[in-house]
Amino acid sequence: MMHDLITFAQRLADAARLETLPRWVNGAAADDKGGGEFDPVTDADREAERVMRGLIETEYPEHGISGEEFPDRPTRGRYSWSLDPVDGTRSFICGLPTWVTLIALLDEGEPVLGIIDAPCLDERYVGFPGGSLFRGRGNEAELRGSGCSSLKQARLSTTDPYLFRGAEADAFERIRERVRTTRYGHDGYGYARLAAGSLDLVIEAGLKPHDYNALIPVVRTAGGAIGDWKGGADFSEGKVIAAATRALYEAALEAMRV
Amino acid sequence: MMHDLITFAQRLADAARLETLPRWVNGAAADDKGGGEFDPVTDADREAERVMRGLIETEYPEHGISGEEFPDRPTRGRYSWSLDPVDGTRSFICGLPTWVTLIALLDEGEPVLGIIDAPCLDERYVGFPGGSLFRGRGNEAELRGSGCSSLKQARLSTTDPYLFRGAEADAFERIRERVRTTRYGHDGYGYARLAAGSLDLVIEAGLKPHDYNALIPVVRTAGGAIGDWKGGADFSEGKVIAAATRALYEAALEAMRV
Repeated sequence: MMHDLITFAQRLADAARLETLPRWVNGAAADDKGGGEFDPVTDADREAERVMRGLIETEYPEHGISGEEFPDRPTRGRYSWSLDPVDGTRSFICGLPTWVTLIALLDEGEPVLGIIDAPCLDERYVGFPGGSLFRGRGNEAELRGSGCSSLKQARLSTTDPYLFRGAEADAFERIRERVRTTRYGHDGYGYARLAAGSLDLVIEAGLKPHDYNALIPVVRTAGGAIGDWKGGADFSEGKVIAAATRALYEAALEAMRV
Repeated sequence: MMHDLITFAQRLADAARLETLPRWVNGAAADDKGGGEFDPVTDADREAERVMRGLIETEYPEHGISGEEFPDRPTRGRYSWSLDPVDGTRSFICGLPTWVTLIALLDEGEPVLGIIDAPCLDERYVGFPGGSLFRGRGNEAELRGSGCSSLKQARLSTTDPYLFRGAEADAFERIRERVRTTRYGHDGYGYARLAAGSLDLVIEAGLKPHDYNALIPVVRTAGGAIGDWKGGADFSEGKVIAAATRALYEAALEAMRV
């Protein structure tokens, strides 16, 4: 059963690519959803979600679906899907290649299967019960984090340092000053690279469920730790710390505390 | 003559890829050059510069060469090469794909031919006297900037907002608040995407000659403007503004002025 679901989840990712990638190559027109902040939504986002929803409704009509572009569909069983066709919309409209498609399967509300798919890079990161898979860069392998447990050695990533406000910004600043190097701008792709061992720490705020659900199985099956900013696993405030090891997660928490 | 030099410059980029890309795929070990700041240098950087120098010394022994890893070789004529095999070393060691190889040919000290090559993405951006070339994303075309002339519409990129200090940081902040969106982390690749029309503005400080020489012909042949933070073209302070149009460059200058 899980094997079929893993295969099916990859079909969703394949189908999403066909909608997103050509629109990225040909340049995307951004709609403004309105409101004060710039919040682009592209045809790619909408059409990829539409095609994934269609596949789920056909193959698993009892499953729930929650996405960014269409109303939630409640589950009539244990499983539901969380979809974010273009995580990194700002990178997408700037013609930058590290946006990703995020797909998660939740079992009784807990994310158990996650895919981070990077269409421009032809890379796919999958975490599932008892295993993981990386495909890309001419290689196919299990995911394995770096094992880094020291802040001083850590390669940190966050999407946008200006997303942090007040005490959040101070906490982030304390970490930034202590790590080996910091990179910006990679949205969900940062967690993918953490799971593949080339980043050690990702710290973000302001994430929504469709932003973080898929990350959780990917990071955990790679041996990493992912939790909230208080040491627990309550992501409802949208604050996430992912680390190559539990020890590094704890060290980050400690350094961020005043 | 220039035609031969354009062909030869692309041979340099091809040769550099063979040294950089496999090392990136297999993970890079970073050396610390010493000093307070983290300043990684990889085998890729060194070996790619070595192989490019070898080709230049064989084919054009009278040309000068200036790179990051080896001592300058003075020109015995009008031409010299400026080489940066891995621009974006921090991205490289974090397994991120937007580092680039920068190659410039200077004629009497003025950059006339520039290549921004992105090996991981298989994309190449070339500017030369009277023309330009983009190769990548299944396409081959001339470079053409977006034509954007309004700050409010502009997609801004900078590598690391923490590189700006004091008044620089204030000036950058004034721009950041006025543009449509800001992306971080892309080093020389940001200028490449500006030349291809998917970013509109790049603002940076702290660049060295091998960081900016190649960018100049690429941006200019795409119809863009590239200058310093004072409205001139003296890059010796390492402060660069590149814009899709002269009007946008002027608007950025104006907004950054107190």
